[in-house]
Amino acid sequence: MPTEIKEQIRKYFHRYVPFDDKELEEFCSCLRTATYKKKEYLLKEKEICRHKFFIASGLVRSFYTDRNGNEQIVQFGIENWWVTNMESFVKESPSEVNIQALEDTRVYMLSKGSLESLYVTIPKLERLFRMITEKMLIAIQRREGYYMKMSSKERYEFMLNEIPDFVQRVPQYMIASYLEITPEYLSELRKKK
Amino acid sequence: MPTEIKEQIRKYFHRYVPFDDKELEEFCSCLRTATYKKKEYLLKEKEICRHKFFIASGLVRSFYTDRNGNEQIVQFGIENWWVTNMESFVKESPSEVNIQALEDTRVYMLSKGSLESLYVTIPKLERLFRMITEKMLIAIQRREGYYMKMSSKERYEFMLNEIPDFVQRVPQYMIASYLEITPEYLSELRKKK
Repeated sequence: MPTEIKEQIRKYFHRYVPFDDKELEEFCSCLRTATYKKKEYLLKEKEICRHKFFIASGLVRSFYTDRNGNEQIVQFGIENWWVTNMESFVKESPSEVNIQALEDTRVYMLSKGSLESLYVTIPKLERLFRMITEKMLIAIQRREGYYMKMSSKERYEFMLNEIPDFVQRVPQYMIASYLEITPEYLSELRKKK
Repeated sequence: MPTEIKEQIRKYFHRYVPFDDKELEEFCSCLRTATYKKKEYLLKEKEICRHKFFIASGLVRSFYTDRNGNEQIVQFGIENWWVTNMESFVKESPSEVNIQALEDTRVYMLSKGSLESLYVTIPKLERLFRMITEKMLIAIQRREGYYMKMSSKERYEFMLNEIPDFVQRVPQYMIASYLEITPEYLSELRKKK
């Protein structure tokens, strides 16, 4: 078990619930490391999502392809975020979303079987993932709320304020897709800044 | 503690994690019962959501008021569902949504303080609410996915198939709001059935 992985996970877990060395060792021994080149897929539509992916470094996006064949981005994931398609992971059903690396990305993968065993041997993982799932749910609901409450200009400004680094790292047309505005309108908003 | 409450909660919990009598007794002793007449609010925008509401009987809706003053329904809740505004509940911040009774509704209310204490005394509640939160997240993501993948006609037909009773109990203009279609178009779809 590389110390580096254990240290990254320790720091991340500590935000929620402190884990001792033995627990961390056990948890990390269940992780599998994988790397994806920019543009490679962690998950493709119709595949079953067999893992929760912890982004160790890099950047990914989750997106649907709508019935007109357009890509609609619903989530970005950066360092120290979990990314998965929850429905596919929980029900072992075909995923409706794609997850794709936008930069060279390194992940720690946790399978459903491993996680279920870990819940039994380290029960405080239930608390950890209860809190993480609440946070994911809040993120989705916030996005939904902003879309209803804010104009597209306000949404862009909000995004710039909340996650400025992020806006730099993601191609502009993807920011536009996430904000549900046209790339032309985004470019106009940027010029006004 | 009325036996009726304990029995309803027992049955509901049993879908996820079995609870023994003592645990159920302790959990139920933290619940407060409240009733809301049709059209009364369980939670109003800008208030802090201090409870998770378990719908014992009746029907509620969660909705945003968008920047044009239109109501946008994001969730319905019926018997044996938990309803809350997660962000407001977790962060004790002002809610962006309203929760309103659509029928005379009876709820069991669980406060944040009680829930935090219960997590300590009955740790398996972590597992229960981890699973319930996953289910809520899946419901939101499914709705998002359907909106992108399906035409409004397909969305309506899907809703009719999945939750037929529900469609009967909710006023048509609210179904239209939830499906993000006009009431006129919904009426046209119904005529074709």
